[in-house]
Amino acid sequence: MAEKAVIGVTGLAVMGRNLARNFARRGHTVAVHNRTFAKTKALVEEFGDEGTFLPAESAEQFVASLERPRRLVIMVKAGAPTDAVIDEFAPLLEPGDMIVDGGNAHFADTRRREAALRERGLHFVGTGISGGEEGALNGPSIMPGGSKESYAALGPLLESIAAVVDGTPCAAHIGPDGAGHFVKMVHNGIEYADMQLIAEAYDLLRNAAGLEPAEIAEVFRSWNTGRLDSYLIEITADLLAHTDAKTGRPFVDVILDQAEQKGTGRWTVQTALDLGTPVSGIAEAVFARSVSGHADLRAAGRTLPGPGRSAKADLSPDDVEKALYASKIIAYAQGFNQIQAGSQEYGWGIDLGTTATIWRGGCIIRAKFLDRIRAAYEADPGTPTLLTDDHFAEAIGEAQDAWRNIVATSARLGVPTPGFSSALAYYDALRAERLPAALTQAQRDFFGAHTYRRVDRDGVFHTRWEAGRVEVES
Amino acid sequence: MAEKAVIGVTGLAVMGRNLARNFARRGHTVAVHNRTFAKTKALVEEFGDEGTFLPAESAEQFVASLERPRRLVIMVKAGAPTDAVIDEFAPLLEPGDMIVDGGNAHFADTRRREAALRERGLHFVGTGISGGEEGALNGPSIMPGGSKESYAALGPLLESIAAVVDGTPCAAHIGPDGAGHFVKMVHNGIEYADMQLIAEAYDLLRNAAGLEPAEIAEVFRSWNTGRLDSYLIEITADLLAHTDAKTGRPFVDVILDQAEQKGTGRWTVQTALDLGTPVSGIAEAVFARSVSGHADLRAAGRTLPGPGRSAKADLSPDDVEKALYASKIIAYAQGFNQIQAGSQEYGWGIDLGTTATIWRGGCIIRAKFLDRIRAAYEADPGTPTLLTDDHFAEAIGEAQDAWRNIVATSARLGVPTPGFSSALAYYDALRAERLPAALTQAQRDFFGAHTYRRVDRDGVFHTRWEAGRVEVES
Repeated sequence: MAEKAVIGVTGLAVMGRNLARNFARRGHTVAVHNRTFAKTKALVEEFGDEGTFLPAESAEQFVASLERPRRLVIMVKAGAPTDAVIDEFAPLLEPGDMIVDGGNAHFADTRRREAALRERGLHFVGTGISGGEEGALNGPSIMPGGSKESYAALGPLLESIAAVVDGTPCAAHIGPDGAGHFVKMVHNGIEYADMQLIAEAYDLLRNAAGLEPAEIAEVFRSWNTGRLDSYLIEITADLLAHTDAKTGRPFVDVILDQAEQKGTGRWTVQTALDLGTPVSGIAEAVFARSVSGHADLRAAGRTLPGPGRSAKADLSPDDVEKALYASKIIAYAQGFNQIQAGSQEYGWGIDLGTTATIWRGGCIIRAKFLDRIRAAYEADPGTPTLLTDDHFAEAIGEAQDAWRNIVATSARLGVPTPGFSSALAYYDALRAERLPAALTQAQRDFFGAHTYRRVDRDGVFHTRWEAGRVEVES
Repeated sequence: MAEKAVIGVTGLAVMGRNLARNFARRGHTVAVHNRTFAKTKALVEEFGDEGTFLPAESAEQFVASLERPRRLVIMVKAGAPTDAVIDEFAPLLEPGDMIVDGGNAHFADTRRREAALRERGLHFVGTGISGGEEGALNGPSIMPGGSKESYAALGPLLESIAAVVDGTPCAAHIGPDGAGHFVKMVHNGIEYADMQLIAEAYDLLRNAAGLEPAEIAEVFRSWNTGRLDSYLIEITADLLAHTDAKTGRPFVDVILDQAEQKGTGRWTVQTALDLGTPVSGIAEAVFARSVSGHADLRAAGRTLPGPGRSAKADLSPDDVEKALYASKIIAYAQGFNQIQAGSQEYGWGIDLGTTATIWRGGCIIRAKFLDRIRAAYEADPGTPTLLTDDHFAEAIGEAQDAWRNIVATSARLGVPTPGFSSALAYYDALRAERLPAALTQAQRDFFGAHTYRRVDRDGVFHTRWEAGRVEVES
């Protein structure tokens, strides 16, 4: 009897290929399949010595080479291509088999697909995989959704290829149907916010404090030995130290300053709006990328009056670090609140501490910091915000003079800090005893009879503004 | 032969009833219909002397009472109820007849409905109507989409009931299919931003400058005689001057400080994200309302460290006015850019000057200011941003020291100003010669091989970060 594979990967572009190699390297026999067989053949020829690959020429052969229950991982583009592959394979599978979607699907699509396949007796696991090509090969962070039953059969395999931090694999069952892709989406949204904050810190050191890229690289390198220790800070130091070979100029100065985006940041904000969760840090980051890409708008805007870039301030890198750390805490607090809200809306029962745990390694936002978040949620799983955790409250308390000073200074100098200032505004709104939202609600009652509540009595009220200003209970 | 009506209104809740009365008062014979006849009867009994109403007991009678081509206005809830009414009436109509949806539909629904009814030879006009109950009765701002042919038959009727400013009615053809509801959506988004900025101005005058509501009412009243002259400033003054009859306290202090929302602000931001248009001012306003409504989060947040509310600053109302005016210009510039982007995406050919013109009266954001926007777009219809218009650039230039000072002061005092500070960050991002988006794009290339462009050569590049840092053209 021919050897069977414990898992199969179809779609052998770089992510799928690296994931298959990761399985093989960990000792799992992997069936591999691609729409065009040439890619399958190339994979086996090039990396066949890394483990046991079972190359399949056809969908039927691929399915036949998998042991039961079949675990079939599809690594193709999100959207219609994913549906097409599901439609191709589902008829070839038997009840109890499982399709795993490792692409960047929208969680709403994952919910739809899971429901449809469940009707046919098949498991569908939408899983977030973060870490890029390198992570897929050497150990990503893996966020699978789907049924508990599917995780029992799939989880050990995923945990065996995931990154490991302090002996714990960066893979865990997130929750039913779309939970895994939802959490991956918010991960990416937080990544946008984190990158924007780093960009603002760099901009301030460069254009307010007057440091050169090589000097700023050293600042980031020192930050990376402290509480900001993270992959993104590390690569920022590397990038800022890099010199362009062609021109001899700092690399960061020869790159066109237009940041692109692929859509998960946008999805995060759109979903947060539906859930009523404020994620202003992520929104400002997404918009900052949009602004950077609008060349016409910026060409017009450069003529507008304001302070010149020669204006400098006596900003210490330590103060910028404090503003960055405080703003980063806000961004993560907002993101975790969105996961909490999604979990509640869809009944996913997501464990926020587990989410922080599996983000400590493998993924783009991996950081020491996430261990603090894990600890905060372990101490108080239902906390309405990370900000009141002892460590974070203390850190912000200690950072805030510097944070406020940085926001004030950037306003005066004309260095844009949408992320820092939006984080501070969110923080101060949470602190406020009373918000001017009372006036907003009064306006709504005035022009649209939208009613209001009172601070001193239960009930819903309306004032007849055009008829003697009499208050009525509605 | 029985008299026929030139127009009919079905759905006689307060908006539909007032719109029907408005038509009747202007001398148009109006057919009126409601799911339950009691409301129809009540309308005619109460307001029958205002004009000629033709009450209909059934859908068939309603349709029969309309002259050809029939103009049938539906004023029911957006979503499924609107579809149900369309499904009820469409079979009773003949080619050339027209259904007008005056509710707050999502423009994507309007596009779908228009396409479906066009196939059946019927015109479908999705129209924004702003001004609330009072506007519907006395003269709203009307933003109809749909075909030119439909506007030829419907426009004069709409123009006759709209608000009038300087002899020009606040109604005009916006563009095909969903254009009218799109423009109404952005109108509402701008309204959110405007209201948030007013709330922040009030909060600063109250909690940073230390004025009492009655004093702030006087400040707003004086602002309303200048360039901020607008409906929202006017009612803010009224609201702040109002004393709660039950307690003798300022009315704004007895209202629960949780601002609600019905969804058009959220739609605006979600759509802007799809279009890639930065509308940070609207997003911050929507999120500010969300924050205000999260009671648990705020209860936790009140314990966080920061400056107490006793801290005061020497802020002059004039400086707050400048910050408010500058931020308001930004919010409108962003909103108009979203209309421009939507018009381009869907091929609507929207005239931005006309949009500003019909918002000068009738609607919630009506303001003197809109005449400036009309003039700016008449002078340069294709301008990438309103900010470079002479009047606005000069106003911001003159306001900006105060604006920067207000943002800096609010950061120091801990008064949340997400709208003011986000507007300033957007302004400074447009002004920037270089943005730190270059670093963001470099990070994307580092961890995801997302490539970059260079400032000195055409082409798309990638650096092999793990392989000798060699740059390759991709």
